Amino acid sequence: MQNTYAIGIDVGGTNTDMGLVRDDAKIVARRSIPTTNYTDIVPYVKDIMAEIESMCAAGDQEKGVGAIAVDELTGIGMGAPNGNFYTGCVEWAPNLPMKGLLEFEAEFRKYTNIPVVLSNDANAAAYGEYVYGGARNMDHFIMITLGTGVGSGIVVDGKLVHGSTGTAGELGHNILIPNGRPCSCGRKGCLEAYTSARGVVKTYVDLRAEKGVPPETEKHPDWIGAQVADADITSKMIGDAANAGDPLAVETYRMVGEWLGLACANACTFSAPSAIFLMGGPTKVGAPLLDPLRKSFEENILNIYKGRCQIYMSHLKANEVAILGAAALIKLKS
Amino acid sequence: MQNTYAIGIDVGGTNTDMGLVRDDAKIVARRSIPTTNYTDIVPYVKDIMAEIESMCAAGDQEKGVGAIAVDELTGIGMGAPNGNFYTGCVEWAPNLPMKGLLEFEAEFRKYTNIPVVLSNDANAAAYGEYVYGGARNMDHFIMITLGTGVGSGIVVDGKLVHGSTGTAGELGHNILIPNGRPCSCGRKGCLEAYTSARGVVKTYVDLRAEKGVPPETEKHPDWIGAQVADADITSKMIGDAANAGDPLAVETYRMVGEWLGLACANACTFSAPSAIFLMGGPTKVGAPLLDPLRKSFEENILNIYKGRCQIYMSHLKANEVAILGAAALIKLKS
Repeated sequence: MQNTYAIGIDVGGTNTDMGLVRDDAKIVARRSIPTTNYTDIVPYVKDIMAEIESMCAAGDQEKGVGAIAVDELTGIGMGAPNGNFYTGCVEWAPNLPMKGLLEFEAEFRKYTNIPVVLSNDANAAAYGEYVYGGARNMDHFIMITLGTGVGSGIVVDGKLVHGSTGTAGELGHNILIPNGRPCSCGRKGCLEAYTSARGVVKTYVDLRAEKGVPPETEKHPDWIGAQVADADITSKMIGDAANAGDPLAVETYRMVGEWLGLACANACTFSAPSAIFLMGGPTKVGAPLLDPLRKSFEENILNIYKGRCQIYMSHLKANEVAILGAAALIKLKS
Repeated sequence: MQNTYAIGIDVGGTNTDMGLVRDDAKIVARRSIPTTNYTDIVPYVKDIMAEIESMCAAGDQEKGVGAIAVDELTGIGMGAPNGNFYTGCVEWAPNLPMKGLLEFEAEFRKYTNIPVVLSNDANAAAYGEYVYGGARNMDHFIMITLGTGVGSGIVVDGKLVHGSTGTAGELGHNILIPNGRPCSCGRKGCLEAYTSARGVVKTYVDLRAEKGVPPETEKHPDWIGAQVADADITSKMIGDAANAGDPLAVETYRMVGEWLGLACANACTFSAPSAIFLMGGPTKVGAPLLDPLRKSFEENILNIYKGRCQIYMSHLKANEVAILGAAALIKLKS
């Protein structure tokens, strides 16, 4: 059977990555343009379309397929912050240089009539996992993405939950600890404030301020010393230190794991998923996060769900999930 | 067009109420048997079937319809604690005299081949609201039922969320306050521990122990005095006192409203419902609960959902919702 091709676009605050995706989950070609160059969607979509045409013109050399007409693509899928599935717009995304209501679907319509589907980046990641990754054949699962923020995509009965607004699935802004840490959303105690990359750093910095670094730190060059300024600390640095045995870093990820485990247990009371997938920078630390996370999950999960929901890392490659996920969205409208 | 008829059964810990339900949401006949008489489902289902046959034999006098054959019913819907939609069983319900795995659908199959559908009582209430009540035409909404416990039913894309296990939608056991009050489920800090009838009483009793009753209580016979023993206090008594201005009772429902408002705001991050419906004993107090609840909801809701989700009381009558909801479940399998 002939392969089909789709475009997946990952709209990041810094770069916009896009790819020509074959239906067997192979990214045939990739392009990137700097999102920061654009304050208006008209030139932005024009330049994206030029890149799409360029990728299509090159075809799929591995399969010996020559130029692909844009109108033969199965569609254009776009994962973007505050992307709304119902309206085809990006709605007041705080971290994009383009502001306000961005009518992407309408703008793409100037160039092509193939399906154009938007959703937020975490929903795209979830659907990528469903179409191409570890959630194939799972009718009920949740994806939680840890990065600068914390996003989520929820699949119920094999469909992404978009809710009445088109913007459902924001577990990062579930209030985990009432009157807790200030969150980027202006409220307090959200999961994001505790388990985003910034949340990880905040936990470490607070712990260090309270306890000071252990005396043996000076013998361990791969631990984080007292001389590293708060502002220079990253979640990756803490992850590396945790894997090198730095007690403060281990303690940091233990706490993050406990919070995330509680959040995962709470999510089960909603949709009773058969799995929760995790992805994103702070998850790369591995065991220092996952071990306490799984322990906390088991401790906090309601009895009737015990043993019936697994925690997995995303099966998709970190540098592919956003493009694959965006391309997968097209299946929601076909 | 000719009317159709269904059976709705509400399995309570004390009584089992059932009704013959016409498709215009009229309960044509009702029966009740004491659940507490049964430790085995064989005689229980036998006696239920006898009541169903008795209701059907009487027909629908208002419409001049004579005896209805059981096999002409659209189905039998059963709302029961721990009722599992997928398996047709009640699974280890702690508050029923019948114990273990109760295979109701199979047991009913001994008598009839019409659809037999089980779900838990809160799911039934939610679907009753969807089919017969205030949620008609709402594709995304949540029902929260406050009673001895706190249950919930979640509708996404017009379908009840049953999840991978058949037992999704247990927002009463979402952990609202980590390491908070002990809950009946054995964990700590669940919504149920704060907003069930028992949670309301616990809040009042704790407040009274801490503050004592206000000196002016003796002038107000409709306030709760210091002489009423803790064990004699009910959530209804506190509700009546709150409506009579008893400051401790008002404070109690203010706190309950704040907790419930936070829980409702958190639920929005999951499915972005267009409404959350409430029902059950502790909601009957009215404004002393609903005013602080709505205020807390507005304060805690994530910006993107603000103004897009309403809090309503169930539109169904308290003494009808369980039977109507159970009967409505049949639509999920037809």
